[in-house]
Amino acid sequence: MTTAQAITLLEQFRSGGVGRDAVLRAFQAAPVADLGFAQIDLHRSLRKNFPEVVYGAGKTPAQVALIVARLLKAEGRALVTRVEASHISALRRRFRGVKAHDAARCATLERRPLKKRPGKIVVLCAGTSDMPVAEEAAITADFMGNTVERIYDVGVAGLHRLLSRLDAVQSANVVIAVAGMEGALPSVVAGLISKPVIAVPTDVGYGASFGGTAALLAMLNSCASGLTVVNINNGFGAGYAASQINALAAGELS
Amino acid sequence: MTTAQAITLLEQFRSGGVGRDAVLRAFQAAPVADLGFAQIDLHRSLRKNFPEVVYGAGKTPAQVALIVARLLKAEGRALVTRVEASHISALRRRFRGVKAHDAARCATLERRPLKKRPGKIVVLCAGTSDMPVAEEAAITADFMGNTVERIYDVGVAGLHRLLSRLDAVQSANVVIAVAGMEGALPSVVAGLISKPVIAVPTDVGYGASFGGTAALLAMLNSCASGLTVVNINNGFGAGYAASQINALAAGELS
Amino acid sequence: MTTAQAITLLEQFRSGGVGRDAVLRAFQAAPVADLGFAQIDLHRSLRKNFPEVVYGAGKTPAQVALIVARLLKAEGRALVTRVEASHISALRRRFRGVKAHDAARCATLERRPLKKRPGKIVVLCAGTSDMPVAEEAAITADFMGNTVERIYDVGVAGLHRLLSRLDAVQSANVVIAVAGMEGALPSVVAGLISKPVIAVPTDVGYGASFGGTAALLAMLNSCASGLTVVNINNGFGAGYAASQINALAAGELS
Amino acid sequence: MTTAQAITLLEQFRSGGVGRDAVLRAFQAAPVADLGFAQIDLHRSLRKNFPEVVYGAGKTPAQVALIVARLLKAEGRALVTRVEASHISALRRRFRGVKAHDAARCATLERRPLKKRPGKIVVLCAGTSDMPVAEEAAITADFMGNTVERIYDVGVAGLHRLLSRLDAVQSANVVIAVAGMEGALPSVVAGLISKPVIAVPTDVGYGASFGGTAALLAMLNSCASGLTVVNINNGFGAGYAASQINALAAGELS
Amino acid sequence: MTTAQAITLLEQFRSGGVGRDAVLRAFQAAPVADLGFAQIDLHRSLRKNFPEVVYGAGKTPAQVALIVARLLKAEGRALVTRVEASHISALRRRFRGVKAHDAARCATLERRPLKKRPGKIVVLCAGTSDMPVAEEAAITADFMGNTVERIYDVGVAGLHRLLSRLDAVQSANVVIAVAGMEGALPSVVAGLISKPVIAVPTDVGYGASFGGTAALLAMLNSCASGLTVVNINNGFGAGYAASQINALAAGELS
Amino acid sequence: MTTAQAITLLEQFRSGGVGRDAVLRAFQAAPVADLGFAQIDLHRSLRKNFPEVVYGAGKTPAQVALIVARLLKAEGRALVTRVEASHISALRRRFRGVKAHDAARCATLERRPLKKRPGKIVVLCAGTSDMPVAEEAAITADFMGNTVERIYDVGVAGLHRLLSRLDAVQSANVVIAVAGMEGALPSVVAGLISKPVIAVPTDVGYGASFGGTAALLAMLNSCASGLTVVNINNGFGAGYAASQINALAAGELS
Amino acid sequence: MTTAQAITLLEQFRSGGVGRDAVLRAFQAAPVADLGFAQIDLHRSLRKNFPEVVYGAGKTPAQVALIVARLLKAEGRALVTRVEASHISALRRRFRGVKAHDAARCATLERRPLKKRPGKIVVLCAGTSDMPVAEEAAITADFMGNTVERIYDVGVAGLHRLLSRLDAVQSANVVIAVAGMEGALPSVVAGLISKPVIAVPTDVGYGASFGGTAALLAMLNSCASGLTVVNINNGFGAGYAASQINALAAGELS
Amino acid sequence: MTTAQAITLLEQFRSGGVGRDAVLRAFQAAPVADLGFAQIDLHRSLRKNFPEVVYGAGKTPAQVALIVARLLKAEGRALVTRVEASHISALRRRFRGVKAHDAARCATLERRPLKKRPGKIVVLCAGTSDMPVAEEAAITADFMGNTVERIYDVGVAGLHRLLSRLDAVQSANVVIAVAGMEGALPSVVAGLISKPVIAVPTDVGYGASFGGTAALLAMLNSCASGLTVVNINNGFGAGYAASQINALAAGELS
Repeated sequence: MTTAQAITLLEQFRSGGVGRDAVLRAFQAAPVADLGFAQIDLHRSLRKNFPEVVYGAGKTPAQVALIVARLLKAEGRALVTRVEASHISALRRRFRGVKAHDAARCATLERRPLKKRPGKIVVLCAGTSDMPVAEEAAITADFMGNTVERIYDVGVAGLHRLLSRLDAVQSANVVIAVAGMEGALPSVVAGLISKPVIAVPTDVGYGASFGGTAALLAMLNSCASGLTVVNINNGFGAGYAASQINALAAGELS
Repeated sequence: MTTAQAITLLEQFRSGGVGRDAVLRAFQAAPVADLGFAQIDLHRSLRKNFPEVVYGAGKTPAQVALIVARLLKAEGRALVTRVEASHISALRRRFRGVKAHDAARCATLERRPLKKRPGKIVVLCAGTSDMPVAEEAAITADFMGNTVERIYDVGVAGLHRLLSRLDAVQSANVVIAVAGMEGALPSVVAGLISKPVIAVPTDVGYGASFGGTAALLAMLNSCASGLTVVNINNGFGAGYAASQINALAAGELS
Repeated sequence: MTTAQAITLLEQFRSGGVGRDAVLRAFQAAPVADLGFAQIDLHRSLRKNFPEVVYGAGKTPAQVALIVARLLKAEGRALVTRVEASHISALRRRFRGVKAHDAARCATLERRPLKKRPGKIVVLCAGTSDMPVAEEAAITADFMGNTVERIYDVGVAGLHRLLSRLDAVQSANVVIAVAGMEGALPSVVAGLISKPVIAVPTDVGYGASFGGTAALLAMLNSCASGLTVVNINNGFGAGYAASQINALAAGELS
Repeated sequence: MTTAQAITLLEQFRSGGVGRDAVLRAFQAAPVADLGFAQIDLHRSLRKNFPEVVYGAGKTPAQVALIVARLLKAEGRALVTRVEASHISALRRRFRGVKAHDAARCATLERRPLKKRPGKIVVLCAGTSDMPVAEEAAITADFMGNTVERIYDVGVAGLHRLLSRLDAVQSANVVIAVAGMEGALPSVVAGLISKPVIAVPTDVGYGASFGGTAALLAMLNSCASGLTVVNINNGFGAGYAASQINALAAGELS
Repeated sequence: MTTAQAITLLEQFRSGGVGRDAVLRAFQAAPVADLGFAQIDLHRSLRKNFPEVVYGAGKTPAQVALIVARLLKAEGRALVTRVEASHISALRRRFRGVKAHDAARCATLERRPLKKRPGKIVVLCAGTSDMPVAEEAAITADFMGNTVERIYDVGVAGLHRLLSRLDAVQSANVVIAVAGMEGALPSVVAGLISKPVIAVPTDVGYGASFGGTAALLAMLNSCASGLTVVNINNGFGAGYAASQINALAAGELS
Repeated sequence: MTTAQAITLLEQFRSGGVGRDAVLRAFQAAPVADLGFAQIDLHRSLRKNFPEVVYGAGKTPAQVALIVARLLKAEGRALVTRVEASHISALRRRFRGVKAHDAARCATLERRPLKKRPGKIVVLCAGTSDMPVAEEAAITADFMGNTVERIYDVGVAGLHRLLSRLDAVQSANVVIAVAGMEGALPSVVAGLISKPVIAVPTDVGYGASFGGTAALLAMLNSCASGLTVVNINNGFGAGYAASQINALAAGELS
Repeated sequence: MTTAQAITLLEQFRSGGVGRDAVLRAFQAAPVADLGFAQIDLHRSLRKNFPEVVYGAGKTPAQVALIVARLLKAEGRALVTRVEASHISALRRRFRGVKAHDAARCATLERRPLKKRPGKIVVLCAGTSDMPVAEEAAITADFMGNTVERIYDVGVAGLHRLLSRLDAVQSANVVIAVAGMEGALPSVVAGLISKPVIAVPTDVGYGASFGGTAALLAMLNSCASGLTVVNINNGFGAGYAASQINALAAGELS
Repeated sequence: MTTAQAITLLEQFRSGGVGRDAVLRAFQAAPVADLGFAQIDLHRSLRKNFPEVVYGAGKTPAQVALIVARLLKAEGRALVTRVEASHISALRRRFRGVKAHDAARCATLERRPLKKRPGKIVVLCAGTSDMPVAEEAAITADFMGNTVERIYDVGVAGLHRLLSRLDAVQSANVVIAVAGMEGALPSVVAGLISKPVIAVPTDVGYGASFGGTAALLAMLNSCASGLTVVNINNGFGAGYAASQINALAAGELS
């Protein structure tokens, strides 16, 4: 029930069009969805340009296509993460304009693309094997209306590669730093810049990497300030959070 | 070596005032600190209002006092976290105006307090036992020039407490959500608002809480978007990152 | 040996019908099965309507069919969990009336279906990926003679979905709450109702979910009272325990 | 806002006593606490005989006394768990009739004791070292209006001790089985009876017990059906859940 | 160098047949293998009836056949554990009399079978899924010259099954107790008998069984005396150690 | 109830001295302790020379003294492990002849010392810090009637120390090998001898020793055959199991 | 920018050939790569005979071939680790002289082979299953210009095998000791020699080996001095570090 | 038995001074200690300048003094690590010239100080809290005859501090890099230099540092080549290994 609908209802009540019990029931029956959570609804409309995202892993191509159809109808655009070739095929059979981002394991459909907000998000990754996660972050941030700059393969074992790109890194509003193995890149970056750094551990590594746990722990224990961390391989989460911050910096969300 | 100094040196070289080797040595000898890292220096001056913070734990009162003296001289203000009574006493013997924040286990000295920037940071905590960590976050954010609103004891086992404060939570630029035990608060909050949520696990709990690991893992695995996580009990880290984001939202740091 | 049989034996002994050694042997030879464990036998007949269940995983189709044949003969009904297509085929080749519950990965054969006892068991799950485990719980509880209501996809990241179904949840005798990832759903539910909540962690998630460990720990550390937990993915165990409680509430088992 | 208040408001609106905006604001301003969560309030009044419990650990004697005062005023009774001598002293200085349960590390104040409901809860423990946790469970269940029977020191290394008490165990509505070390007791018990068994691991043990983790894992992996588990040392949680189930069996909570 | 060879050498030296340096070199060059470790050689000849065993996993059929050929030549018999069908085929192509023990995943070749020593080894297992590990233990012990009695599917969830076989268990010299899931069987058994019990955890289970870790920890933390533990799934190790103990009991190895 | 008592009862019944119900009650009332578990009783009398042991840790001096009094009356001897000075004092105040084994943290009272059985148990330890655990094993084995030889400080970092004592090690019936840190000693020993080796990990170490976990895992993963393992620091368990094996070798327990 | 280039630039500036801003820009624009990190460049040229290595796992054959082509052009030689058959084929289609080291899972291309430096590196492994990792270490060290001696299958369960090769081990400059399971070999070796020992845990084992964690922890906790450790299965890392040390011993790298 | 003694014995045998059996016994009786391990003895005399070190933790002052007395007599010098004030006092009461290294928690006694070998060992540490471990490494290396340069507080969060000291770091033969928290320093350093880097994790940190595990895992998973790792806080081990390598570089140990 929108505010407009609530006003109409009250006016109908005052004019005798509906009875007292009907008004009461309307307000009581579904307060959460309709009134009690008007804030939520409001807030959901505020973030209309942050459409729901489909996590493809473990879903059949048919299921993914179904959800995308619903999103497209409601939002005009959709992002599907962790897709496989079969998901892409299913989407292409049903929709036009499906963009497959192979490196990111993502697909996007954008009938009404978002205008880019000012401010830049830089996505760093330590090694080429971390690229799928970094790309998932980059595609997500891009899809949500941000200008994204990728600076890849700048791991700490060859520090000069990172340092030579420092200007670009420092000019971002938010930095996403993706790394597996020892996960040192976000700490080094957060020590060099004054903007928020979102650290993404990946499961790149072997042996005592324990599926990315080593990198995750390193990032949580960083001695550098301004670092926050998301789950192992959670490129989407990092891209989403970075976009929220960049939107704040652009004066949105207020 | 500043750009001006570099120009002077080059002119002296051309005019014969200094020899070639001297120029070469000047550029080579300390390139990192003076020229190669001019960016870093610049950036450090940019974040002058983010003074270094003293981690009190494991330091003697004398050591803490010494470091604070240096910071006061350079910055005019200092924040000491994880203080004990003996640290406070030592600071008070040496400095005037030491504020002890008992609940936060922090002390602050502010000869030149920062002006509050616009935008609000809300600090939530799940239970009263999580308060020391929440207060550390709140004091840090406050100290760094932010308006902070505390909403405590709003754990998910009594959801109405949180929901009844939803307006206040939604009006923040950034939310810090502190919780031990099952660590569910940040997920619930991030599902209700569209702003960045920084999750802080605490070691409150017993048994299979494993010193806060249960809460940490819950937060890293949140199904809500826009959540990033800091180390267990790291209230300072959350306050610092929230302040960075709020400064971005205020148009600073650009 | 029942009490009646024991009395008969003693009377035969006194009347000389059996000798002393025969009596002694009867009491000594198999005390566990016959006398010492008469209680156990009694209790097993009490739970006749809780037939043994076949755990299909790791068993060949032939093995499953064999065990089911034995159960059908003894009980007239059987539940097989964690089945694959090959199990279903093998069962169908041998028995009529095999019901395959695909989502639950279960099969049931019920020649003599149980009458539903009063009282309702509600099965909640956080996300659609948790459905197989939730369905295993639901099928188990249904099979054991309970009315089951499913409320799915009500994870805490969209709290309004749960809150809008609160009436239904509160009207249950027992609630089974199934969740992977951060595992917060059971805590939130247990804070909202006064009935027993059985929490089931699932291995849905990735990275630091560690195969469901994050959700398991969250549930064990819940700050909400009245919550008990079963093993990761153990939908059957939750359905079984919920049925026991519902039977108690119906005045059975006493 | 109660239903009565809502009706009054609507009537005032129709009669012109209040304006449309005032009505709208009343329904919108605090929907959660007042209308949207009427269910919650209702439900809280339903569980009035389950008063809030004070977790003493980490609270000062003064804090505990303050919370108890509030509970006594609202409920007429209070249970404090994990108390130390200083908590007891503080309570006794302020209140009359404080009962200290040393073995359980609990204190109770009961001006209006609850009438015992029918049905029995049996609390088992494996070794004498597990007694504090078992007693916490027993005192909690007793305090919540249940008849409790304690059967202690019946660990599986001396199986005859448990078997000789089997009748008593089988006559309970719910069994709480407390064990540290290898944590086998709940599995053995759940195999012998048809009632719900709540397993409580304790941190009794050393070496590879890892603070109760060994017992916890054993209980979660039990091959016996009908077993649910609470956190390590969580005697209160087990007593609370057992009381909920026993109340259901007594026809309450419906 | 045997003692006889050493004497010969010394005599040749005294008679001038070999020089001093040659003697010195003979004693120094290979002291470990030839003289210093005469004890080891002796001891190896003592355990001739404990032939080396081939661990098949990860070896090609050809490699397994090669090693078996060497063992057969030296010992006249061989045991291969963790075999697959391809190993069996390769062995049968090359040797006659290959016995495949499918349940145990073992193969044996015995041209000169060992005479059974007196004394019995009982192998227990908790569930039918633990059988491969139990069979590996049983085949190993049998192959090493012991009379082995198998008592399977006697897990603690149906205690009467174990208790009804207690006589047989108590008549063994050594008991091997194999269990996955909660791993309680060895504790219960060791509480009932006075002979050594060797506990073998298996990886049977799911979720928080963590590949057998739950059972392993339970066994290590057993409150019953006289229990020792081997690695997860290490049926061979248990059979070997049980055979050593049984040989001691038979008066061998002294 | 012994067999003799059972016969007497039956004869009294036949002669009319006791009624039918009394007989029935005698057999039913305590079937476990008296009849159903006659086997257990038998077996317990068989191991009379394996008296129950008091685990001192966490018990008050008064509690320990009480239990010891009961044991002394029943058995004439007692072993208390993990004692502190206060336990010793309390025992000495009450009993004569208390022997304090400081290094082993044990106390023994032996009014009727056991005759030593033939066969030797050797206790090895890797470093001097492992001595308390090794001594607990040695005192236990000695107290249970075994000849014990201690060979200490023979860790693998100085292999010659162990090799020079090889003869003594090989002459044992059972070897207990105690080690912390990397826990390699038992593997090396089991490779050198043909008798059962019981490995005891200790918590000696720091850092990634994780309280003895490193040594425990090393021992469980030993590539040497014939090794079984007990819990970290469980010297008593190793001494007990070794004594059982040595008793078997001496022809006892059959 | 080399020193020579810098001198040229300065001379051109003095002679008017280039302007002041051009000089300034040259020094400022890329200080890291060109001047600030001249040290790094220098150092990279110093280690020219340590060419970059390609980690094959997770790369397509085409990707590997591309990187190898680049390395061959720059260095004239390349080492690819963790190769599969498809990598080898791709390399052979494009390059001549590809050597496949099957056991090591490596490939090498050496148009200009390095001259062997004096000093020997010995690579030990405990079991034949550890060979792939040992071979990776050996091939790496050999490829980097070292004489390598392999001594395999010398695990501690048959100590005489190691002791009989002690002379060879002691004559090395550096020893690489590779072991899975209990990981004891490096400790034993480091106790016997005075040279640096690099320990490599492998994931050989099962059950509580936890993918090599048991061996890793054992090595980290070694009681022998002079032992350092690399990641599980990291044969390349051990070979690289050993080569660095051997080069130091040969008077290189200074 | 030295070679000289062996020769004497053989000559006495040839001249009839001792009989054949006496020679045989001399070679056989203690082959390990006397002949078989002559290599070991030799090697131990080679490393005379690597005296045994006393690990003070857990030893009484009297025990430490006793061992030091023995070492002083044999070696003329001793190093005691992990000392407390009471150890120092006890040493000073008994010996002159005891040097207490407070920061390193070490004491040294050097009657015959070693001459410094050429080549430098650099010890880096990330934060001031890591200093005790770094100092233990530095004192150990210094005591073993190496020139040591300390560069402290150069953690990666302030990279310019490390880079400005790069020349000094690159001029070392071996670098020891000590770090807690995220443990990134050794990776960064190993990427910048071509010499061996020994990484020492410390337990500095809190929360998910898990006592130094985070830093340990980061170091083991380093993407930089040439890095080897020792146990958490094992400064001594790093100093010892670095000294071995530096001795090799100086042409010793060959």
